[in-house]
Amino acid sequence: MKKTIITVSLPMIFLLLPFVPSNRLAAQQPKNQDQEIAEKYVRSALTEQKGYKLLGEMCTMGPRLSGSANSIRVMRWAERKMKELGFNRVWMQPVMVPHWVRGDVEKAEISKSRGFNGRALNVASLGGSIGTDPAGITAGVLEVHSFEELKSAGSRANGKIIFFNRPMDIGEINTFRAYGEAVNQRTQGAIEASRAGGVGAIVRSVTTRYDNVPHVGVMYYNDSIPKVPSVAIGLEDADFLSEALKCDPQLQVHLTLDCKTLPDTQSYNLIGEITGSEKPDEIVLVGGHFDCWDKGQGAQDDGAGCMQSMEVLDLFHRLNIRPKRTIRCVFFINEENGTRGGEYYGQYADTTGFEHVAAIESDRGAATPRGFTVHGDSLVLEKIRGWLPVLQNAGIDWVRSGHGGTDISRIKEAIAQIGYVPDGQRYFDYHHSDNDVFATVDPREFELGAASMAVLVYLISEYGL
Amino acid sequence: MKKTIITVSLPMIFLLLPFVPSNRLAAQQPKNQDQEIAEKYVRSALTEQKGYKLLGEMCTMGPRLSGSANSIRVMRWAERKMKELGFNRVWMQPVMVPHWVRGDVEKAEISKSRGFNGRALNVASLGGSIGTDPAGITAGVLEVHSFEELKSAGSRANGKIIFFNRPMDIGEINTFRAYGEAVNQRTQGAIEASRAGGVGAIVRSVTTRYDNVPHVGVMYYNDSIPKVPSVAIGLEDADFLSEALKCDPQLQVHLTLDCKTLPDTQSYNLIGEITGSEKPDEIVLVGGHFDCWDKGQGAQDDGAGCMQSMEVLDLFHRLNIRPKRTIRCVFFINEENGTRGGEYYGQYADTTGFEHVAAIESDRGAATPRGFTVHGDSLVLEKIRGWLPVLQNAGIDWVRSGHGGTDISRIKEAIAQIGYVPDGQRYFDYHHSDNDVFATVDPREFELGAASMAVLVYLISEYGL
Repeated sequence: MKKTIITVSLPMIFLLLPFVPSNRLAAQQPKNQDQEIAEKYVRSALTEQKGYKLLGEMCTMGPRLSGSANSIRVMRWAERKMKELGFNRVWMQPVMVPHWVRGDVEKAEISKSRGFNGRALNVASLGGSIGTDPAGITAGVLEVHSFEELKSAGSRANGKIIFFNRPMDIGEINTFRAYGEAVNQRTQGAIEASRAGGVGAIVRSVTTRYDNVPHVGVMYYNDSIPKVPSVAIGLEDADFLSEALKCDPQLQVHLTLDCKTLPDTQSYNLIGEITGSEKPDEIVLVGGHFDCWDKGQGAQDDGAGCMQSMEVLDLFHRLNIRPKRTIRCVFFINEENGTRGGEYYGQYADTTGFEHVAAIESDRGAATPRGFTVHGDSLVLEKIRGWLPVLQNAGIDWVRSGHGGTDISRIKEAIAQIGYVPDGQRYFDYHHSDNDVFATVDPREFELGAASMAVLVYLISEYGL
Repeated sequence: MKKTIITVSLPMIFLLLPFVPSNRLAAQQPKNQDQEIAEKYVRSALTEQKGYKLLGEMCTMGPRLSGSANSIRVMRWAERKMKELGFNRVWMQPVMVPHWVRGDVEKAEISKSRGFNGRALNVASLGGSIGTDPAGITAGVLEVHSFEELKSAGSRANGKIIFFNRPMDIGEINTFRAYGEAVNQRTQGAIEASRAGGVGAIVRSVTTRYDNVPHVGVMYYNDSIPKVPSVAIGLEDADFLSEALKCDPQLQVHLTLDCKTLPDTQSYNLIGEITGSEKPDEIVLVGGHFDCWDKGQGAQDDGAGCMQSMEVLDLFHRLNIRPKRTIRCVFFINEENGTRGGEYYGQYADTTGFEHVAAIESDRGAATPRGFTVHGDSLVLEKIRGWLPVLQNAGIDWVRSGHGGTDISRIKEAIAQIGYVPDGQRYFDYHHSDNDVFATVDPREFELGAASMAVLVYLISEYGL
């Protein structure tokens, strides 16, 4: 803004008080009753801890990898729970999903080395990887820290297993940013390894915790380039392998995997809703993704988001609050390796008579609330930011412009796509690994996530966007 | 928007961006260089984790109860560390402190009951309690939930052990508020029990976690009323005792304690500093309390605050940043049961030629940063709030008016007493109990506390208040 003299209307007078937080200025806007309702949501969530207990129950049932029989079994359990909780409509929406299976063998060990023969390396196949021959592959190892370094290695990559060993930047406070900067080794490593003449890829786990647990996740192939197998390796073994290569650059690794991709298979999104009393055709959606990797229990990623979303609806029931608009809880399938559930739901949303006012996604773990990110126009952002004095009752400190979520990004018609943002410092300790278990979830932090989303859903349902 | 038209002049242009957080507006104020320095503090803290490692080392050395020989031993270790870190001056400031000892016996069991004889109750003497005769006391139990209920019980309290069983309100999002509302049972319970004719007090632990670990803490006597022994009881056993009393209101409890208070003994505050380059007589103080209860390791309360404070100074060294003002790290002794260290330091501060510009205290655990509370006038608050765009680099979301801290509240001359406020959802799971161990401390969350205080100390040192 560059002008000298302008005219403004009266309400701007409130903006002339420097250093008063903007949320104080907005405090006039929402009714006192909203504050009381927010407090009730928080109190009910923290004392009953119903979503937390459901998450504990779900986590005992085994992982929910897309396409697995177990994912369907656990979804049937969730469907029963939604019905028991008295949601007005509950249904499973058929979606075809990729069907990758880990198989029984994922094994790496050092062979043909000076002194390290037989030393096992703790690896796990990356999601989507091809397996090896039953006999496995044996090859030398080229360690690199970037695709540029790999390119400049030239023919030295020929016939090698490429070991991508760039650490996640733990000096970066924003762990999601650090993850984004490191994860291309995992997603694109097999492509680049093969392009350079390599026969496989070993990828340093993308994690903030220093232990020896491999952190898996999706990886991709390029159909015009030969597919090579790809695994994640635990940090301690990554550092060991790097040291071993300094002692003996000629050492070889023997890798045996029997993971494979089967034909696409039938799966489902799970949907439950409470019908709005005044505008039943207007939807406020809240959800997470139901599938998870087959390591750990998928407690933080994203069992938490699902059970929080289910509890959002239950909180309306428990407190006997009938929403004006329809509140819909969606458990999307296949976020981890295809986003087919989100894609399908987006198309469905475009073609039904319903209008999606907002879609909220919880897919950043179960830690204590920090804020909401809003993908929408500036007026919508301002409106939601104006609710901060109410949202603060549930531990929300800010509302910022930003990405809403992977699944809900497919719901193009939504006026706002909103991401729930808990604190992110511990998330990548657990993410996509055996570390992601229910025991890492703090009940109060989890429940404040449910409560803060319930408050936001309530406000959107009452006032629209 | 109402339509009255007014005119405003150029500087106000910045204020015409509705809903831009006030901290963004203030972003013009601090230099870009400050942002860079803040990022360096964060990066160094998160990657080196030096304070976290020191905390781990300290926690292996046993608890640091005021007056105990071990507290002196561990303080000598800390003194050596400060010297090794190259602080300009390091000294121990003699302070006489209370000397309460737990003794070897703290035992409670049900006796003379219908069916519960011999059932042990998990109790721990409260700090300052008298013991019992070696043979212990045996008495009936009166359960109450408030001092009012105790008063209205009249003669029914005579000769009884009073069982204060009001739970901490876990439905309250602000755990410190909930603690404040429940803790008078522990601090005043023995006085009120005795006043009512009781012979002892059993107090439900003030905690957010449901387990059977007693949470201790200070309790008081009134010299004009007979002293009776007082213990904390784990939540599971509190609920058991309450149920048992429903079955058999006549049951008795046998209580044996050999805790006692010895004469005051010599202890110390530990102080280390980096001399300011331009205003060496102006002090920016950062600290925590060195003493802790003799349950657990005092990792969260308040080993964390001490090691974070020590790291604040070390961060200046590591980054080769010479502060303009003197930065002083103080480990106060005896915060838990007397505040003698804080009292003494306050008197000392009044009588030296130094001026305390600000005093910052970390005594709310090691969880992820949320904000700072400032006890000072409104201009000081505004100045610090104006630094939010810099502080946000270290995870600080807000600066609010509020209490600074127990120890630093004694430094009356400080322009600002500032409390570091990490997230409080998990703190009372650990507080004053065997649960307070190093394993509960997350390295990144801990380190962001050190970094956020270092950034604030830097800004105060550079610009004053």
